[in-house]
Amino acid sequence: MTSRPARGRRPGDPAITRQSILEAARATFARAGYERATIRAIASAAAVDPALVHHYFGTKEELFVAAHEIPVSPAIALSALANGQGTLGERVARAYLGAALTEGGPFEALVRAAWTNATARAMLREFIERGMLDTLAPYLGTPDARFRLILAGSHLMGLFMAREVMGFSALRAADLEYLVRVVGPTIDRYLTGDLDPAGQTEPQ
Amino acid sequence: MTSRPARGRRPGDPAITRQSILEAARATFARAGYERATIRAIASAAAVDPALVHHYFGTKEELFVAAHEIPVSPAIALSALANGQGTLGERVARAYLGAALTEGGPFEALVRAAWTNATARAMLREFIERGMLDTLAPYLGTPDARFRLILAGSHLMGLFMAREVMGFSALRAADLEYLVRVVGPTIDRYLTGDLDPAGQTEPQ
Repeated sequence: MTSRPARGRRPGDPAITRQSILEAARATFARAGYERATIRAIASAAAVDPALVHHYFGTKEELFVAAHEIPVSPAIALSALANGQGTLGERVARAYLGAALTEGGPFEALVRAAWTNATARAMLREFIERGMLDTLAPYLGTPDARFRLILAGSHLMGLFMAREVMGFSALRAADLEYLVRVVGPTIDRYLTGDLDPAGQTEPQ
Repeated sequence: MTSRPARGRRPGDPAITRQSILEAARATFARAGYERATIRAIASAAAVDPALVHHYFGTKEELFVAAHEIPVSPAIALSALANGQGTLGERVARAYLGAALTEGGPFEALVRAAWTNATARAMLREFIERGMLDTLAPYLGTPDARFRLILAGSHLMGLFMAREVMGFSALRAADLEYLVRVVGPTIDRYLTGDLDPAGQTEPQ
């Protein structure tokens, strides 16, 4: 905050610069895909220095999250894995299900686009594989960490959609902390439990 | 099957009649919503007798499922709840995750439309509430049956999307029966288990 009064759009205004970078990022990611879109290319599309992009948004995954207003960033998910109240599963469920969705916002548009065309779908998949799983898998440290994270993540994604997008009354009516206690044990088992005890003890 | 050779499009051809009814159904459901679309209105739009619609497709929910090629019908879900190999949760998971998705088909279009506009979203929600839950909830027979079914259903829907639509390699690589054993205990607990043991034993 500075003391000068707002004077609308003018070059050098941090809010305008931030907005231009976000727009350039959405366009560049959509065109080049997640992996091939570089900070340098996004900076060039926004006509700013790459250092400024890093200064405002940090890493590429954080810029992707900001540009599409994704409810849960890798940093938030990692923090939920590492700290907070309750079991690991409860913390992760709370972070995910407690996230807000802006109706008609860039995240909705992104998921819609992922249904509509293969390029958008590949971009979202690459972001989840590189941006989310590469960050979170080392925390679990198991050989099947990516499978476990996808299991847990797709469960929470399905619930989030059923509650926030589809708006099923039975889910809307449930208190968030109740939902966290119901879902927590599942997430715990998926992330750190024995996934297939029957399969391991079967003699054949 | 009759013995006469196919002669292309002509009135009275059962395949053409079926197709007209499906098209009329999609259009009527989209316009009027699930609850207000009647078999009579759909028959009228297809210029056939309502009895013929019942003859080809049975109930309204079955017609909705057929028109949108929904991978799991209420009848299939009910059969999975009642019969089959393994635990209840394994049977339901197998029926759901084993379903096929036609890429670019009416089901994809329906889910996409549910993101895009409120009318389509309400139609899909009404179908699930009326067509699926009203059929399945009596089978569970518990006061929170609808909540339990939505919990289980949204989990399976999230997994189905992650595997069939997004195509995450960690999920694609997993054998279906392995996935069924991993997910089965969750579905069992959601449908018939104690959802919140900690909450019940807490003294406060």
